[in-house]
Amino acid sequence: MIGPIQALTFDVFGTVVDWRSSIIREGQAFRHGVDWAGFADAWRARYQPMLERVRSGALPWTPLDTLHRMSLDALVADFGLAGLSADELDHLNRVWHRLDPWADAIAGMTRLRRRFTVAALSNGNVALLVDMARRAGIPWDAVLGAEVARTYKPQPEAYLETARLLGVAPEACLMVAAHNNDLVAASALGFRTAFVVRRTEHGPAQTTNLAPERAWDIVAEDLVDLAVKLGC
Amino acid sequence: MIGPIQALTFDVFGTVVDWRSSIIREGQAFRHGVDWAGFADAWRARYQPMLERVRSGALPWTPLDTLHRMSLDALVADFGLAGLSADELDHLNRVWHRLDPWADAIAGMTRLRRRFTVAALSNGNVALLVDMARRAGIPWDAVLGAEVARTYKPQPEAYLETARLLGVAPEACLMVAAHNNDLVAASALGFRTAFVVRRTEHGPAQTTNLAPERAWDIVAEDLVDLAVKLGC
Repeated sequence: MIGPIQALTFDVFGTVVDWRSSIIREGQAFRHGVDWAGFADAWRARYQPMLERVRSGALPWTPLDTLHRMSLDALVADFGLAGLSADELDHLNRVWHRLDPWADAIAGMTRLRRRFTVAALSNGNVALLVDMARRAGIPWDAVLGAEVARTYKPQPEAYLETARLLGVAPEACLMVAAHNNDLVAASALGFRTAFVVRRTEHGPAQTTNLAPERAWDIVAEDLVDLAVKLGC
Repeated sequence: MIGPIQALTFDVFGTVVDWRSSIIREGQAFRHGVDWAGFADAWRARYQPMLERVRSGALPWTPLDTLHRMSLDALVADFGLAGLSADELDHLNRVWHRLDPWADAIAGMTRLRRRFTVAALSNGNVALLVDMARRAGIPWDAVLGAEVARTYKPQPEAYLETARLLGVAPEACLMVAAHNNDLVAASALGFRTAFVVRRTEHGPAQTTNLAPERAWDIVAEDLVDLAVKLGC
């Protein structure tokens, strides 16, 4: 049985927004003849290694926008994008500010927010998350996570600083994520856990995070299902 | 002429919410026979000296909820409240989480938010501001300010860290406040400035901040007037 929850802390990329389809959609509208699916996958494949450079101390604290840009600069030649202007590259890098939510996300979060504080606990920087929320209508009560803690998930301080800023004990926070490893890290700190199944985050051939790998407190098909399961 | 603005950063106590009337209202419903107006004024009179203890380094970083409680503990005997239980004192201390907005605030901010990012740049801690916003319906895009910068206004980092987290240059931030000294500090860092006239923040006999003391970029009668003056 799950104890009393006061705040829901959300992973964002993959859990609330569909980054892969959004990058493909925007890329295809921007330029024909580029393998935008391959590009999206290659860009995201550099994500965890980049975060690890910061977590390990090889890089000082660096916001995600800057890490995205470092990865993008390393990819453009391989995908026939080397001719982009500086403005075009800046615009492309900020596609992460313009990701679309999954179809259930806004409806589910709007219901959840009636009863619980809903906060981003993301590796995205605050400006990225605020721009995304304004464009997509994501109803955050607070945008927290890695940047305010100055460390990336799954480092403990990203979770603990978010709970502390919300004034809520970890045991009264429900971490909502489509990734088992995010929930492993949060649960080790006392957070309650909700796994949301996102079977196509990585496209139709996804092989990871298709099912819960532990007995999480809640397993939900999407965020509307989570609202139902929390009685909202 | 004012340059292009991307984000509005708001002072909260006195500018968005009417702390004095809210404390009096809640106090009178809680217990008769107490001078709640005198109590509210005495509590707030200890506010800047408490912040100064943190700004000066005499105290380490301490969130506003804790400073409010230190001040409250020093006041209870003088106002006949020494018999309150620990739970009652905790509840009273959190009246700052339950302040009511000025009558124009929600309507004005809702209009402003259509066009600009609206963020709290307050000395209130994040949990206080989130609770207040959820109760009152204040439509923040982000709740930032002193606690995420770990220093109190008017220290420069409180303003600069908020602008940095928003990804907006100070020159594209409009600081909105009912207090001339807040705008003095912000404008020294490059922020644009909007003075909102709140003639009864300190009650009917208010003597301070009745008028702009410099040529601020905008002077508004309230937040709806600010929306009109910004073309929202």
